[in-house]
Amino acid sequence: MNRTIRTDLALEAEALWRESRSGGAPEGVRARREKRGAFAVTTVEVLDDRGEAALGKPRGTYVTVELDALIRREENAFPEACALLAEALRALLPLSPGDACLVVGLGNRAITPDAVGPDAVDYVMVTRHLREQLPEDFGAFRPVCAVCSGVLGTTGIESGSLVRAVTDTVRPAAVVAVDALASRSPDRLCRTVQIADTGIVPGSGVGNARQALNRETLGIPVIAVGVPTVVDAATLTLDLASRGGVSPDPQAFGEAGGMIVTPREIDKSVRDVSKLIGYALNLALHDGLTIEDVDMFLS
Amino acid sequence: MNRTIRTDLALEAEALWRESRSGGAPEGVRARREKRGAFAVTTVEVLDDRGEAALGKPRGTYVTVELDALIRREENAFPEACALLAEALRALLPLSPGDACLVVGLGNRAITPDAVGPDAVDYVMVTRHLREQLPEDFGAFRPVCAVCSGVLGTTGIESGSLVRAVTDTVRPAAVVAVDALASRSPDRLCRTVQIADTGIVPGSGVGNARQALNRETLGIPVIAVGVPTVVDAATLTLDLASRGGVSPDPQAFGEAGGMIVTPREIDKSVRDVSKLIGYALNLALHDGLTIEDVDMFLS
Amino acid sequence: MNRTIRTDLALEAEALWRESRSGGAPEGVRARREKRGAFAVTTVEVLDDRGEAALGKPRGTYVTVELDALIRREENAFPEACALLAEALRALLPLSPGDACLVVGLGNRAITPDAVGPDAVDYVMVTRHLREQLPEDFGAFRPVCAVCSGVLGTTGIESGSLVRAVTDTVRPAAVVAVDALASRSPDRLCRTVQIADTGIVPGSGVGNARQALNRETLGIPVIAVGVPTVVDAATLTLDLASRGGVSPDPQAFGEAGGMIVTPREIDKSVRDVSKLIGYALNLALHDGLTIEDVDMFLS
Amino acid sequence: MNRTIRTDLALEAEALWRESRSGGAPEGVRARREKRGAFAVTTVEVLDDRGEAALGKPRGTYVTVELDALIRREENAFPEACALLAEALRALLPLSPGDACLVVGLGNRAITPDAVGPDAVDYVMVTRHLREQLPEDFGAFRPVCAVCSGVLGTTGIESGSLVRAVTDTVRPAAVVAVDALASRSPDRLCRTVQIADTGIVPGSGVGNARQALNRETLGIPVIAVGVPTVVDAATLTLDLASRGGVSPDPQAFGEAGGMIVTPREIDKSVRDVSKLIGYALNLALHDGLTIEDVDMFLS
Repeated sequence: MNRTIRTDLALEAEALWRESRSGGAPEGVRARREKRGAFAVTTVEVLDDRGEAALGKPRGTYVTVELDALIRREENAFPEACALLAEALRALLPLSPGDACLVVGLGNRAITPDAVGPDAVDYVMVTRHLREQLPEDFGAFRPVCAVCSGVLGTTGIESGSLVRAVTDTVRPAAVVAVDALASRSPDRLCRTVQIADTGIVPGSGVGNARQALNRETLGIPVIAVGVPTVVDAATLTLDLASRGGVSPDPQAFGEAGGMIVTPREIDKSVRDVSKLIGYALNLALHDGLTIEDVDMFLS
Repeated sequence: MNRTIRTDLALEAEALWRESRSGGAPEGVRARREKRGAFAVTTVEVLDDRGEAALGKPRGTYVTVELDALIRREENAFPEACALLAEALRALLPLSPGDACLVVGLGNRAITPDAVGPDAVDYVMVTRHLREQLPEDFGAFRPVCAVCSGVLGTTGIESGSLVRAVTDTVRPAAVVAVDALASRSPDRLCRTVQIADTGIVPGSGVGNARQALNRETLGIPVIAVGVPTVVDAATLTLDLASRGGVSPDPQAFGEAGGMIVTPREIDKSVRDVSKLIGYALNLALHDGLTIEDVDMFLS
Repeated sequence: MNRTIRTDLALEAEALWRESRSGGAPEGVRARREKRGAFAVTTVEVLDDRGEAALGKPRGTYVTVELDALIRREENAFPEACALLAEALRALLPLSPGDACLVVGLGNRAITPDAVGPDAVDYVMVTRHLREQLPEDFGAFRPVCAVCSGVLGTTGIESGSLVRAVTDTVRPAAVVAVDALASRSPDRLCRTVQIADTGIVPGSGVGNARQALNRETLGIPVIAVGVPTVVDAATLTLDLASRGGVSPDPQAFGEAGGMIVTPREIDKSVRDVSKLIGYALNLALHDGLTIEDVDMFLS
Repeated sequence: MNRTIRTDLALEAEALWRESRSGGAPEGVRARREKRGAFAVTTVEVLDDRGEAALGKPRGTYVTVELDALIRREENAFPEACALLAEALRALLPLSPGDACLVVGLGNRAITPDAVGPDAVDYVMVTRHLREQLPEDFGAFRPVCAVCSGVLGTTGIESGSLVRAVTDTVRPAAVVAVDALASRSPDRLCRTVQIADTGIVPGSGVGNARQALNRETLGIPVIAVGVPTVVDAATLTLDLASRGGVSPDPQAFGEAGGMIVTPREIDKSVRDVSKLIGYALNLALHDGLTIEDVDMFLS
């Protein structure tokens, strides 16, 4: 029974459903896959209750970009991936000119596979205070602010509560929340970005689920940007066993508990994909910006 | 004119006043110095408007502990300094058993001399969530939560606003805010801790002053814990010139702008004093705790 | 066929041999397991060519200590584990009083699962220069020096060549080389230490094999201290498949290429076991030292 | 008496000599200052014994580039500064095509103002092993290797001995040694680079002098690349007092002992100038390379 295979990616959930039913698509779900330049983009729409039940994901739009051309270090892959992600972000972010945006880095900077959120925030151009301090230079920028919410174990406060406290104070028009995810497949780790207009449950990727960040809880749109950085070793075990048509050896399963599958160069992989997300967010949030402008601002 | 010499330490402000008047104590100020074990403790009380005007500090009690015995690495200096700081904290912290406390690390972790606040928070035992999750193990602990407020340049949000948002959500009985300070004297750097019941203005130590964190702005007591980590090079210049009885060379003064005086081993010094503050806070906030208990909790 | 399952641990190689033959012990190998205090200690001796062929390891003694009591955070587990490892190190280290020792940290500090060697060196008491500078204080200490050899990709020089250059200059009586290893079993990661008198091939744990560091290449005894921090995801796949009695799905195997299985909290786990190794080395190298002495020296 | 003012910069030593003699240039020294693009370049040649005695520096050529245009973040300042430094390095580096070069990072990565050497090495393209492994891709690159020699306190081995051991093994045609320096003037910190063909004494910048690295000790040319990151607070005190025409207050002088003057944002300043040096070295060592090539190689 595939449901115990854990994935935060809608495109994997959709594929699992189809595998389990030997073909056919779940009702209430629309999925399409296309090629944009060097990158594969999959859009999964969960349309109604049937779709939610089939995939175990809230309704909304999930856009997944696969970064294989970037990983192969093809020429111009970084600027092209930035532009593609920025376009996908703009399509889901309902912001008018001048609307403020809050970027939230979820996860724990001290645990490398959980550091995507805080690391991405390091690359976000924070402009809210500059518009006030230097209006002649920064008046044309969107007001953007950013926080890392920490994790319950380091703050004693739910990420959800902290973010709600900040949005009540700052009153942005939308939130973008960046977090690490879990996937089913080792070959997607650190090379896939999912953007969804559904909000996010902090920590569902690599820890316990906490209070959701979404339109219901915050009163404003919440765009989730996620990157799978781990496969549960238990998921890998189950998955391999199910493909082999055998029951998994309980001892092997137990051994895998608390373990994760991750790229060998996880430190560098997380840093690279975090930079990509930060840069794409900057291009999405401010009009007419170039990668060189971002380089200059952040240096 | 000594007022341009910058110091965040009340005991230095009091000494500067006396120097400028050739002896005699300012009215509205009470100062006493005593030896407790191996450490010198100075208590400066600013009693009224005259005291505030004389020292340029809000009224309240400022306790300064000089850590020279610790720096000389005398036997048992670490546990004794912890116990002494914990006692001073308890005397100023108006907490009843079970009252929640929020610890705030002010400053910028990426700038070493400004990292005391965030670094100290790394050593604070965060217990608020554990009381709920594991009441049998942690029911006797005070609920403590902790946040690092970042700095305006990295979040786009005033530290004061962020902390107010968190206190409105968490509703602690008191706040302890830890920050780096500026002093007049190089030989106090990283070897003096000031504890005050006056609250604090974030960033006054090593940057621009922002909104105050105090009883007026937060509605609850705010204890400030500060460590001088820098002397403005401009202050050093002015100070040396005034002692030499000459006007400072304007060129030398200009050269010193934007420069700081700091211990050569600033990285290690900041880490060491941050650990001391975190441990002392734990002993002050929880009854009957030992240093070994803190070691075990944090490891 | 089990030989494709990768392990750097002699005790796993011995167990694999027995599994593949349905019981019986390999000839030319002696293995015994005992309990010392809270810890399980396994000693595998590879006695001759037959043993080398059976286990794929050079002849010599391999002592493995399992740290489960430490991971469970039992009382006094850290000092007991230190003492036990120090005793095992002394038994294999042929040093007379006053003999110099060189500690080498192999691996790449920038890749967390490969950082055990460099991180352990941070906890080693370096005394060689102090004996000369402060003979009255440090005359009784063994002269110990330490280097991190980096990795070929960051230096352009083989670790083996670098270490040989240093031993030719420093002329120690023995080398201790600390490195990360690969194991077969996820539940041994960061909780097992192997000490061997056979020397080591740098990078065999998590990268390509390089020139050996051993008595043949350096002319002095080389003690290897290793900690498994990763399981090849490919090894996990193969291992699970072989236990399930099925051929592994080639696609799943391919997906796992370049991936590792590691503890979720790898950053903290590596730091903790590195500290343990550094402390144990200090106790082994200097007579009459306590853990408090090491704390004081390193602080 | 100005000789107690400490500086590692030849251009400051020359200026101090002239100040102390009220004009006139020291014999045996030739100095010229010119503007190249946006940058001031000063070349000081110490020609003979008289010059050595006057400046307290060994004979040779010292080229100093002032990076003010880079600090002001003028357009194209980074590539222009790289090109200018690369040209100065090539003029002093006696390398034929295909000659191997060893880059040495001196200093202590854990002490920020002393980390220029190790940090610069992080940006050096290490190619020696690639030429052998991938001759078709890297056959045209010069063989470059790199080591960080650590400091005596962390290795127990003199930097000089370690570097000599490495050069004996690797046999490069020249060494480039990168280190932090001390200057007299706060406004040069992290914004000046000195390139000299004289070799270097490791640790003379921010610690005790150790064995020299130069043609006499290594048998090959040694180019020193240095960046002032600190002013001794004692030097600042003395310097200000001498300019004011008064004897320094002994107490103020004492207070400044062990303290340094450094830019407030020392962490970022050191990182930025280290990157510049690494990139300039790459352009100097390999023909026809662009900054984009270096970006790509290092990413």
